[in-house]
Amino acid sequence: MATTSKIELEDALALGPSWRHLCYAMLYAPNPGTLFGGRVLLSYSVLMSMRFDGRLGFPGGFVDDRSPSLEEGLNKELLKKLGEGVSTFNVLSTDYRSSLADSKSKVVAHFYVKCLTLEQLQTVEASAPRAKDYGLEVLGLVRVPLYTLRDGRGGLPAFLENSFIGVAREQLLDALQDLGILAPETASDLKGRIVQLKQTLRLIGT
Amino acid sequence: MATTSKIELEDALALGPSWRHLCYAMLYAPNPGTLFGGRVLLSYSVLMSMRFDGRLGFPGGFVDDRSPSLEEGLNKELLKKLGEGVSTFNVLSTDYRSSLADSKSKVVAHFYVKCLTLEQLQTVEASAPRAKDYGLEVLGLVRVPLYTLRDGRGGLPAFLENSFIGVAREQLLDALQDLGILAPETASDLKGRIVQLKQTLRLIGT
Repeated sequence: MATTSKIELEDALALGPSWRHLCYAMLYAPNPGTLFGGRVLLSYSVLMSMRFDGRLGFPGGFVDDRSPSLEEGLNKELLKKLGEGVSTFNVLSTDYRSSLADSKSKVVAHFYVKCLTLEQLQTVEASAPRAKDYGLEVLGLVRVPLYTLRDGRGGLPAFLENSFIGVAREQLLDALQDLGILAPETASDLKGRIVQLKQTLRLIGT
Repeated sequence: MATTSKIELEDALALGPSWRHLCYAMLYAPNPGTLFGGRVLLSYSVLMSMRFDGRLGFPGGFVDDRSPSLEEGLNKELLKKLGEGVSTFNVLSTDYRSSLADSKSKVVAHFYVKCLTLEQLQTVEASAPRAKDYGLEVLGLVRVPLYTLRDGRGGLPAFLENSFIGVAREQLLDALQDLGILAPETASDLKGRIVQLKQTLRLIGT
């Protein structure tokens, strides 16, 4: 049974000391580039990381809730996970998006979405292999393909069939839709596919 | 119906001009590092790339079969895909492993396995974001987790549930077994899971 539910930030911050706070961020940037001689528009570059457990997720980590703020804790985690390239920006309280509380594990997860310039995003990518946690908790950074290739599967649909931690896949689609990067009907189609995929995989216990 | 079959290199090279040759390489290095304060041994680092189509694969590409050799073509492709970091080594004919011919698409794919030092592998990772094809055909480089975490799923089992191009997943497991990195019974268990996963996914047309 699902033990995870949405929670307002104010209520999340009022949770007792038995709760741990997790913060992570979707970093993205407009990208005017094209693929295959202009036939495919990149539109944006969105970063996700391959985690130590073999699943894709957004970079971040547990923050000491005695930090002055969640954001300060998150920025410190991003420095450990992604390296010095994050020093060109700070994730701010205005980048906050939503929180989810898991009553079983007593973990409350805060999701941030941060718009960078393409140059800032490239700086993050370039410095990531020298980050403290690289090759350990972080096995690599990848850009999310936002397009769908002519076969109707390659690109975002196939990318969404990868392994994701928790609700990272759903949060990715929600954020892309809210930012106007994905049309609502496209996001809805893709979410339907994910539900079907998850139900099918549950049948074989994965 | 499967149209792909193993082929000897000599026979592959004798295929007519209507065939295209694809070469790709698994780059790996011994890694003495540990995760979680020594509880998890990394043993080796193995590189795969996130492709433009949202699937994981080994870096490489189509080689002009008029090149002096397949390997020369492969090394040029690695330079485009992975950047200047590949200049510390050359994939050689002795790194060749196997070939697969697809009679439908008329593509014959040659697989190489190259052992690097950890320093060489890190140089590849560090230069990859500056490669010609980065952010285009290559969306990122990831290390394959070779361990299984205590929950029995995190690590290699969860990693193998990602989306892979062609037979890259099976080639990864075969190579790891042949190199003695995975015990035969572990490789066999994981292959069984992949067969089950593929059959299940086929049910929903993915």
